[in-house]
Formats: sequence, C-alpha cells, structure tokens
Amino acid sequence: MSNRPGGNPQLRPDRRLGHLLSIEGLPEHLLLEILNTAESFLQIGERAVKKTPTLRGRTVVNLFFENSTRTRTTFELAAKRLSADVLNINVATSSRSKGESLLDTIDNLMAMHVDGFVIRHQDAGASHLVARHVDQDAWVINAGDGRHAHPTQGLLDVFTIRSYKGPIENLKVAIVGDILHSRVARSQIHALATLGCPDIRVIAPKTLLPAQVEHLGVRVYHDLREGLYGVDVITMLRLQKERMEASLLPSFAEYFAEYGLSERSLDYADPAAIVLHPGPMNRGVEIDSAVADGPRAVILPQVTHGLAIRMAVLSQLAGAREPQQTGNPS
Amino acid sequence: MSNRPGGNPQLRPDRRLGHLLSIEGLPEHLLLEILNTAESFLQIGERAVKKTPTLRGRTVVNLFFENSTRTRTTFELAAKRLSADVLNINVATSSRSKGESLLDTIDNLMAMHVDGFVIRHQDAGASHLVARHVDQDAWVINAGDGRHAHPTQGLLDVFTIRSYKGPIENLKVAIVGDILHSRVARSQIHALATLGCPDIRVIAPKTLLPAQVEHLGVRVYHDLREGLYGVDVITMLRLQKERMEASLLPSFAEYFAEYGLSERSLDYADPAAIVLHPGPMNRGVEIDSAVADGPRAVILPQVTHGLAIRMAVLSQLAGAREPQQTGNPS
Amino acid sequence: MSNRPGGNPQLRPDRRLGHLLSIEGLPEHLLLEILNTAESFLQIGERAVKKTPTLRGRTVVNLFFENSTRTRTTFELAAKRLSADVLNINVATSSRSKGESLLDTIDNLMAMHVDGFVIRHQDAGASHLVARHVDQDAWVINAGDGRHAHPTQGLLDVFTIRSYKGPIENLKVAIVGDILHSRVARSQIHALATLGCPDIRVIAPKTLLPAQVEHLGVRVYHDLREGLYGVDVITMLRLQKERMEASLLPSFAEYFAEYGLSERSLDYADPAAIVLHPGPMNRGVEIDSAVADGPRAVILPQVTHGLAIRMAVLSQLAGAREPQQTGNPS
Repeated sequence: MSNRPGGNPQLRPDRRLGHLLSIEGLPEHLLLEILNTAESFLQIGERAVKKTPTLRGRTVVNLFFENSTRTRTTFELAAKRLSADVLNINVATSSRSKGESLLDTIDNLMAMHVDGFVIRHQDAGASHLVARHVDQDAWVINAGDGRHAHPTQGLLDVFTIRSYKGPIENLKVAIVGDILHSRVARSQIHALATLGCPDIRVIAPKTLLPAQVEHLGVRVYHDLREGLYGVDVITMLRLQKERMEASLLPSFAEYFAEYGLSERSLDYADPAAIVLHPGPMNRGVEIDSAVADGPRAVILPQVTHGLAIRMAVLSQLAGAREPQQTGNPS
Repeated sequence: MSNRPGGNPQLRPDRRLGHLLSIEGLPEHLLLEILNTAESFLQIGERAVKKTPTLRGRTVVNLFFENSTRTRTTFELAAKRLSADVLNINVATSSRSKGESLLDTIDNLMAMHVDGFVIRHQDAGASHLVARHVDQDAWVINAGDGRHAHPTQGLLDVFTIRSYKGPIENLKVAIVGDILHSRVARSQIHALATLGCPDIRVIAPKTLLPAQVEHLGVRVYHDLREGLYGVDVITMLRLQKERMEASLLPSFAEYFAEYGLSERSLDYADPAAIVLHPGPMNRGVEIDSAVADGPRAVILPQVTHGLAIRMAVLSQLAGAREPQQTGNPS
Repeated sequence: MSNRPGGNPQLRPDRRLGHLLSIEGLPEHLLLEILNTAESFLQIGERAVKKTPTLRGRTVVNLFFENSTRTRTTFELAAKRLSADVLNINVATSSRSKGESLLDTIDNLMAMHVDGFVIRHQDAGASHLVARHVDQDAWVINAGDGRHAHPTQGLLDVFTIRSYKGPIENLKVAIVGDILHSRVARSQIHALATLGCPDIRVIAPKTLLPAQVEHLGVRVYHDLREGLYGVDVITMLRLQKERMEASLLPSFAEYFAEYGLSERSLDYADPAAIVLHPGPMNRGVEIDSAVADGPRAVILPQVTHGLAIRMAVLSQLAGAREPQQTGNPS
C-alpha cells in the first residue's frame, strides 16, 4: 500500500510488523523481535494448560491452496493456543472449483471480519497479492508460496540455530539439496544473511541450483564433503519425488550416494555441528536414519520452535493492531 | 409435529421459531424478529473480541451433503462467534458411503445430544424431513435443499435491501437469471412477498423459468432492459455451468449479451438502484466486473449481513428453547 | 515401556490407566473405574451447557488413517465438551502421501506438545506401536486398529448392557455376524469376560469365524435361533459389503435369511432381551428395521453411552498425569 514506509508491504506506517510475507525485506529489528517473542511462547508448550487469551475473539483463516497437513496443523494449533477462532479452508475442494477468484474469496472472508489470513499457495507472490488487497486492519502470513518464500520456516530455522549455536554472525552454515525448488532454502538464506551470517554455503548438483544463485550471497559447492568442511550447521532439504520424474536427477540411490547425509559425510563438518531438516524427511534419500535420529539432529526441536515462532508472529500481527484500531492513518 | 400450530413445522407451540426451513410459511413477525436481532449482531463483527457466550456449551452440527465451503464457513463462524462447539460433517466422505440413511445419521447425532443441525442437501425437503424427525429440543436450519429453499440467503437479501433502500413495501425488485434452478430466487421472492413488496420481477430466458412462475406473485420479463426499467433493487443469480452443458443455453457469451448485468444495462434501472448477488460470482457471465466492483454493488455487505443473520437465527433457535426446557408439552 | 508393571503397556507405574489400547490386558478395576466415571459424564449431555473444563488447554489429536466420521465425531465431541483443543488429522490426505512414517508423524506432533492421540489405523497393533514410542507424558487411545481392537466400543457395550440388564455375571450374551473381521466383537468379548460373563456365544457362518475362536472363552453356534435361545443380550455386527465381494458369503438376502435379526428370530431370546449394534446399520442385511427401531433395541443409547465413555477415558488419561508431572520415575 502506498502508505507503507518505503513501499515495504510488510511494514505498517509505524514500522511495526503488518504482514509476514518473506524474510527478504524484513528489517533485522523485526526479525529479532519475533525470535525474542517466540522465546516467551516456548514455555507455554511445557505447561499443562497450554493456552493464552492473546487472540480471544479473533478469527484466523487457514486458506490452503496446496495440501499441507503439517503446516496447517502448526498454524491451527498456534492460533488455538492463543484462543483464536480458526477456520480451515482447503481451497482445492471449495468454491474455487466453482471458478471464484482468489481475491473474491478474500473479499468474502474480509466481509466476515476475519482478522488474519494464513495462506499457502502454489504461485509465488500470492500472499503479497492478498496483502496488498486486504483492509488495513487485516494481516497476512505467507505459509509458503510456490518456490518463493516460507518465512516462518526461515524464522524457526534461525531460532533453532541461535538456540543451539549462539550468535549467527560466528557461524558457517551449509544448505544441501534441491535449492532450485526450495522456498525453505530461500527463506533460510535471507534470515541468515539478515542476522549477519558470514559463511552461507549451498551444496547441490547443478540441475538443482537456481541461475545466479551466488547473488543471494552464498558460496556454491557441488561436492558434499568439500561443502560441509568445518560447518557448524547443516540443513538438509527434502527431495521431492517429482524431481526424479522430471529427469533432473538419476535415481534416489545415486542422489543419496552423492548428496545424502550419512554419519560418514557428517564427519567433515565441525564435530559440534547440528543438523536441520524442514520435514517431512525422506529417510534414506536425503538423510540417513542414523543421522536423523542421532545426537546432532535438531529436527524435532525445529518443530517445537516452529510452533513458538508461529504463536509469536500471530500475536505480533494481532497486537500491532490494537493501539491503531481507532485512529488508522490513511 | 402434531403439536405445531396449524401444522407449521417451523413454529413451536408458543408460536416462536422452532426451525428455519423456508421463508414460505414463516410469519412476518418472526421474519422481522430475525432481521431485528441481526441488527444487534452486526456490531459484534466490528469489535476486536468478536464473541458472545450465547451458545456456550451447545453443539451445532454442520451436516453438508453437498460441498459448499462458503455457506459452511459462514455457519461455522456464526456458531463459533456465539461460543458454540461446532462439528463439521461432510457426508459425501462419511458413513453415508457405508450406506447409512439420513435419519440414522440424525438419530446418532441426536443421541450425542446435539442441539442444532445446519443441513445442506441436494434433495428438496431434506431438512423438513429432519425437522419432523428430531426431538422437540433440537432445531434444524435449512442451508439449502435442492432447488427448494435457502432461507438464510433470503433473509440476508431482504436485510441488505432494507438497510440500503428502506421499507420493502415501497420498492421495485428484479431477480435476473436462472430462476428455474435457484433456491436463492425462491427464498428471496417469498421474503419480499412477506414484507409486502409490491413489484417483484423475474427476468430470464424461458428455458430458465419454472412453469407457472407467476403463481409466486411475480411479473415475468424475457428482456433484461425492459425488466430492469425503474427498479430499485437488482439481484443477479449465479449461472451454473451445468446449465450450459444441459443445452438450456447457447453459450456464456450469448448469455452475457442478453442477460448479463453491465453498466449499460444498469442504466435502465433507477439511478439509486443497488445490485445483489449471492456469490460466488461468474464475472463476465452473469455480471460484469465493472458492476460487481462498482458503487451500486452491495455484494460484500450481503456477506457481512449473512453472518449477522445466521448468528441471529442460531441465537433465536437456541434461546427459544431455554424457558421450555423443563416443561415441554407433548 | 520397561517401567510399566508386568510389561503391560496400558498401565502406568502407579498402576493407573496410561493408555487405552485394548480391553485385553485391562485390569478389571480400571475397566470398572472407566464405567463408573462415565456414569458421571452421562448427565453432562443432558444439560444446556454441555461442557466441563477438565481438559482445558490440553491438545488432543484425532489421527485417522482410516475414514470414520462417526468415530471421529464422537471423540471430537467428547474432547470439545471437556474443553480440549482438538486437531483432526486425516492421514489419507496428508503428509503420509509424502512418504512420512507413522512414527515420524507422531514425533512431530509430540514436538508440538500434544497431550493425547486418538488413533484409528488399518493395521493391528498400530496404536501399541505409538504407545511404546511416545513420551511418558502423552497418552494414546486406540480408536480401532485393523481386526484387533476397538476398546471404547467394548466399554460402551458393557456399559449399555450393565445399565439395562444389571450385573454382567448373571447374563447370557450372543454376538452375531462377522466375528472374523470384527474388532468390535473381539473387544466386547474381552470386556464381558473381564466382568465375569458366564455365557458368551458367537453365532456366525464358518467363513466368518476366526480359527480357534473357542480360545476366547466363547461358545460357537452356526444356527441363529439355537444360539439366541434364552440370551439376555444380542449384539448384531455390521456386515461389510467387502465380505460379499470376497465370496465369503453368498448374497445379502441369503445372509439375512440365515443370520439377520428379525422379530421372529428375536422370539428365541429371553423376552426381556436387548439388542445392540455398533452402527452404522445395514437395515435388511444383518438387522430388520422392525427390530432396529423396536422396543428392545438399545442402539441409540449405545451412542449416548459411547460419548460418556470417551469423555471418561479422556479425563482419566489426562487426570492420571497431573500428580505425576513433576516427578516421573524413569
């Protein structure tokens, strides 16, 4: 919107968080604010009564144009633990099949005074489109749009890295696998860069790298062991079966031999290195079960952190509204 | 039931609302009571905490034998904002596929002490059947049954008309499109007639009109501009693609040329006329985007009003019970 | 787990209920405790406000690997009436299709601090597998696993029998139909045996009986009337259409003639006999409508009792945690 500072669609006029669309363009202080808020939400999960009234009476819509039970579940649970009312709309099976446009769907939900939208869509930019369209009172979280971004994933990744390895600016981080099709990789790279990570590496076969990937500020490796050498953090990306079918890769077995993370290849990393994976894992394809279930894996803590991150983002977006509600600048 | 006055299945023995099955047969005072109650629910949507405890501890089942995310969503949200527990049952994917009958399904839910049923069904009369079957404590809302009725739609239509144009008894109203297959048209016509609308027009090709439609108290036009002449309210009906396939119509383009609402044809109506559409719209088929997004369209307010109407109906049906609960006549 | 007494996976170290996986191996005092707790939950369904705060702030996941709207609905409603947050995950349409294993799915949900899992799975033993895997704080309810067990069904059956016919140790009970494929039969037989039922009969064609069924402590009949002679309780099992297709049976009509319960065959039972059915019924296949809707059927009370049983089990599993939470033995 024209009144967003510098045209940044994620910021409100008072420079607080207005939408969460991508890590790219998210100022460091807002990113840190989310991480710090998430710390305080972590402990709610430990209680018997895992609930706060933060979003009581607010309506959050999970609008999913792609199936993703896992992501939908974490957002649904985050919103419910904040006491929001949650509507799950799986648009694959809904009125879109009757030909309604995305923005007509949004307009309808806005007319019901929905407070926030959590959107997953196969097209890059879908949630930006919605964010430009909604009223100033409503907010949008991008829960994954095409190959573009998945910002809560990037946030939970750096949250996890920071909590295990300390300040990001001292770390060497490698991301391994299908960088080309991965919104997870893209979001993590931006988050790491924002927090000053001095050494970000991507490790992948040429067919799974975007053109001019170096422009993201990363170093490119085609050899796994060379790329892992001395790193503190390894993120293994999920390999979609479709890549194989599209002949971008020879076979699962050959992929695993070259780019799969086994205990042997893990030896090339720093002895205290941690291993991340966004899930769901293909055991034996991109990661060996011995590593996935081993002492260096922080894959399940990522899930726990992901819930806290989503609660933090939801509460910041909802809270950012309150003092504004009666006197919105326009 | 035998103890319903005059056999009217929607009335309780004390003449209050017992079920909402169709506008036909709904006495004017009850219709007005719903509209007036809806006024008070409108403002809840404006608050930060969009929630009242009216239905706390009550269980509402959305029992949908036809997919309709939009209608299901409004009822789900209405019930949640009234603090009810909501169960969504999509019967296409449920035990009906195991061969259980509609009434066995209802009996089962009744045995779980469900308070109310919101039913959408492909067969006309399905919710009447259920209403005759349930215990006196339970209530039924018809959320669309075949071509027969969609009473909350009729109510939100007259609510919207009244709030923009004042008393219905002074208005000329045109309904345009597929009258034959439309429960929306039928419900709106009955609502307008109940409130004393002196001039109701239907505008449609002969293939999309029911036999003896004049018996509903409407005037029939086959020419759009002639029919729109001087009207205060225009309701455009959604054109189902299936009509085309069934050869009831030549093509979308020809349909739009003859019966689609463009700014030019809108000129024939009163300059202050408003445009309604039940949604979802087929832009460029029955309505031009310039009209749909223009200043005369009240299509999104219809959605807002629809939520308030559904909250009003739910609360009346639930409230009607309370003083009766210990001494039901039988 | 190794610290479960006698290796019984359903018991906690203090011998209270830790999981509900099968009636087999459930000690009589725990079974009775569930029945008695259910009595107190029965009346909640009668109230206007059908809700208690017992599970407030707890998260219950309905993890269904088989479609069953009916069972999912009863567990969802039971959890909601106890004020829990409920997540419905239908795994047929979720990330399992992305190849994630059952235990990875469970680990993920555990990482979100889910309190309890209600699991339906096509494979016998699935919920045992999960119960062995989860943290000591979490609990598992088996909502049906293959042909193995459906313990809440067995509990609601004996609850219903007890409330209509008094002490189980005085009763003759017949179970009729597809014993071979029925987890319902198996669970009811174990529940009856635990409560000292002296005369349990199964009545079925040879093709629908498991090998060595007598080892369950039942008497086998192939003739319906002979088997029904003098019984106090009759449980009719649902006949799956698939059995017909698999040529285990000649035709529905012939099955009904031999094993369907009509008023005439009912005459062979005790005049005060009651008729149970787990639902959904195939009217005219295993049970005649005159019987299903007749005065001896307690099929709908079974549903009411099933909800109370599920509330009782949920509250016992949740409650069993509280005093333990700070000092778990390990």
